[in-house]
Amino acid sequence: MNPWESYLEVHRARSLAELEDFLRLPSVSSLPEHVDDVQRAAEWAAGRLVRAGMEHVEVFPTDGHPMVYGDWLHAGDAPTILMYGHVDVQPADPFELWVSPPFEPDIRDGRIYARGASDMKGNLLESVLGTEALLQTQGSLPVNVKFIFEAEEEIGSPHVPAFVAEHRSLLACDLAVSADGLQWGEDQPQVALGCRGLAGLQIDVRGANADLHSGLYGGAVPNPIHALAGILSSMHDPDGTVSIEGFYDGVVAVSDGERTAIAEIPFDEAAYRRSLGLAHLVGEPSYTPLERLWIRPTLEVNGIWGGFQGAGVKTVLPGEAHAKITCRLVAAQDPSRILELLTAHIERHAPDGVTVEVQPLPGLAQPYSIPRDHWGNQAADAVLTALYDKRPYYTRMGGTLPICGTFLSVLGAYTVGFGFALGDEQIHAPNEFLRLSSFDRGARAWAALLLELAERKGSTASSAISASGSGAVPG
Amino acid sequence: MNPWESYLEVHRARSLAELEDFLRLPSVSSLPEHVDDVQRAAEWAAGRLVRAGMEHVEVFPTDGHPMVYGDWLHAGDAPTILMYGHVDVQPADPFELWVSPPFEPDIRDGRIYARGASDMKGNLLESVLGTEALLQTQGSLPVNVKFIFEAEEEIGSPHVPAFVAEHRSLLACDLAVSADGLQWGEDQPQVALGCRGLAGLQIDVRGANADLHSGLYGGAVPNPIHALAGILSSMHDPDGTVSIEGFYDGVVAVSDGERTAIAEIPFDEAAYRRSLGLAHLVGEPSYTPLERLWIRPTLEVNGIWGGFQGAGVKTVLPGEAHAKITCRLVAAQDPSRILELLTAHIERHAPDGVTVEVQPLPGLAQPYSIPRDHWGNQAADAVLTALYDKRPYYTRMGGTLPICGTFLSVLGAYTVGFGFALGDEQIHAPNEFLRLSSFDRGARAWAALLLELAERKGSTASSAISASGSGAVPG
Repeated sequence: MNPWESYLEVHRARSLAELEDFLRLPSVSSLPEHVDDVQRAAEWAAGRLVRAGMEHVEVFPTDGHPMVYGDWLHAGDAPTILMYGHVDVQPADPFELWVSPPFEPDIRDGRIYARGASDMKGNLLESVLGTEALLQTQGSLPVNVKFIFEAEEEIGSPHVPAFVAEHRSLLACDLAVSADGLQWGEDQPQVALGCRGLAGLQIDVRGANADLHSGLYGGAVPNPIHALAGILSSMHDPDGTVSIEGFYDGVVAVSDGERTAIAEIPFDEAAYRRSLGLAHLVGEPSYTPLERLWIRPTLEVNGIWGGFQGAGVKTVLPGEAHAKITCRLVAAQDPSRILELLTAHIERHAPDGVTVEVQPLPGLAQPYSIPRDHWGNQAADAVLTALYDKRPYYTRMGGTLPICGTFLSVLGAYTVGFGFALGDEQIHAPNEFLRLSSFDRGARAWAALLLELAERKGSTASSAISASGSGAVPG
Repeated sequence: MNPWESYLEVHRARSLAELEDFLRLPSVSSLPEHVDDVQRAAEWAAGRLVRAGMEHVEVFPTDGHPMVYGDWLHAGDAPTILMYGHVDVQPADPFELWVSPPFEPDIRDGRIYARGASDMKGNLLESVLGTEALLQTQGSLPVNVKFIFEAEEEIGSPHVPAFVAEHRSLLACDLAVSADGLQWGEDQPQVALGCRGLAGLQIDVRGANADLHSGLYGGAVPNPIHALAGILSSMHDPDGTVSIEGFYDGVVAVSDGERTAIAEIPFDEAAYRRSLGLAHLVGEPSYTPLERLWIRPTLEVNGIWGGFQGAGVKTVLPGEAHAKITCRLVAAQDPSRILELLTAHIERHAPDGVTVEVQPLPGLAQPYSIPRDHWGNQAADAVLTALYDKRPYYTRMGGTLPICGTFLSVLGAYTVGFGFALGDEQIHAPNEFLRLSSFDRGARAWAALLLELAERKGSTASSAISASGSGAVPG
């Protein structure tokens, strides 16, 4: 065991206690009553960076929640790595479904249960712990590091792009690494090559100026729910293809090589269906399920409402109906252009008698893609291969990490995903948890990654760990 | 002024105070917390029948809310008239929109404001007051009368058909007259020739066994909102015609004569649209708006819900989506058959990947129609013509009065509509009110109607008031 591994081992109880402290802060960014808690979480993370030996640590105010920065820049010509995470969490309701209270961390069967355990206070702390272990045991770091933690990720990071743009010198880097992410499985690592972008809007359909009696008015007065159903049902072909004119225009076809690589990733469709309680999957027929989830754009209605929703019968002819839609986008679809196409489609399909309005939703995000053989991926591949004794799958993510597009467009830096959460950890749901084994492994992985990155910049080799040695990260 | 008119005049203050007492009882039949208030309202009405001189007054329990009965059967061979009303009211929320509290009646500008004022505690009391005035001033009534008041009208009368069937001897009659209804306008009476029936169901669409992340699952996992939108949009042609196979099969065409009569009723479509804030009306192109509202069946989605309905964006791929649908039916559509057709249509249009279930909603009701020249209508026509100095319009009602179908099928008796509410009185809405002029006029009208009915049974004449004299009811 090398010194920084021993350091992590020796300090394990303290690290776990720190994670518990961090998880006790209900830093729910979407709820105004938690604005002070979000601030406290940012300050806690800043304090932890100071204790890890970071310099220039600062909590920057924004027009929304704060940003946390800290750096260590004494590695000379070595690459500069920007390490990203977020201190905010999703709301915890419904509270009654939690076995232990969401903001009172509870360790059961080798797992720590709390809102934010998996997404992503555990992951964030791993990146700090790994960095600290190297710095404290070696007296220096092999690369220059900058930490940037936001506190608005769970609400779509509304103030982050402007902050990054305003502080582009402060945040300048050769590579970003995001601690916010997953591995494929407990025994299988992955390198994610991209994520989908996002564009969303709300449709507001209005008919009469009040809810009316469906008997007295039904038959002559337009029903906004009928209109909305017609508009929504015009958006997909029966086979699941999106039928918005121009929707697929910007899509860059994924290479046969990558499609082959995706096809080689084991995917048990029957088990997947069973776990979701589904008899069939749906979607574009000429793509496999994983391709539909990763490399193809989608349009989903996230919510719909109008009229009477209670028990029994209420014969109302509603005055309005509403729906929220988000599209997941792939390179090189432009989110703003997609909103234009959607709006034009909705206007074309709005029937007489009702008014239809469209309002963009927050969270517009560019799709993001990193070349498979990027030196950052090579470093991650080497570390993960050593750590899991297995080559990572090269995957993509169906979800959206807006920060990746922001770092690429503003800082000119790609982002490598390097998170150790797992897909079954009840992220965004009651009883969220993190495996303590992942917490330990993540901290070791981050130390190994910094060592590996120091060797890789500019390299095109795809060999395994060199200077850091495969012994650095036990399989 | 004849004696019973004087009686009504002399007792006007008392009658109004009684109406206020009645309105203070929050007899909301749909809310469990008001079950005792509904009982109290039934008992109040029973007590009022006793004071009016009725006999055999009884509050019958049912498996739901109670029924109130009372009679006066000393008119020998004269016809027996069953007088119908309901003591329950709609919920009063949203409370904050009421100018005065809904269960604290407030008289402003010749109107009494309270939940139930117009629908229909005022109307109900008018029928009792008119009967009482005759009985107290003449010592007898010209017809046999039976009062039956229910307390479930606002929740679809679930226990009323069984009660009527069980008590068919008690309720046996030559004609029913319902106090629950409207006149055309303050200066224009109407005789309603029918109302539409009702059949409703809820559609429950389920996809995955939980709400999922739309980024991680969108594209391969079926979205129940998409499925529901497709099902709902398949139910109408673009021109508003219902496209459920077989939906119009049972419809009996309304005669040219009645269509001509409807066409003669003034209907200012532009004013109607303006009042509703609409640029266009919709519906079956070969029928006028009034025909679409009265003599044609409809299918309306009353409510829809699924997924995220809050502010901002939440990228959920929902596990379920729901809608409630009711159809208004005309003679001779059968509500149960319509539910079968709807269910078959929904099953045919349910896409792969989701499960679609259908549950019937309570409130199934037969459409109802009374011959225009029925002796009950002739009596109502005569009274209304004298009272308003204007011939009534012969209209229909787009809404549903399930009791009419029940009385016809179980008791073999038609029901004449004889209510004095007006369409602008905020029925089912905040600030419901009744004009005090309608309250006074209604009481006089009921006395005149009983006198007129005594003369009309078996008659085919269409002349105006005879024995009671046109002087009985000032124009």
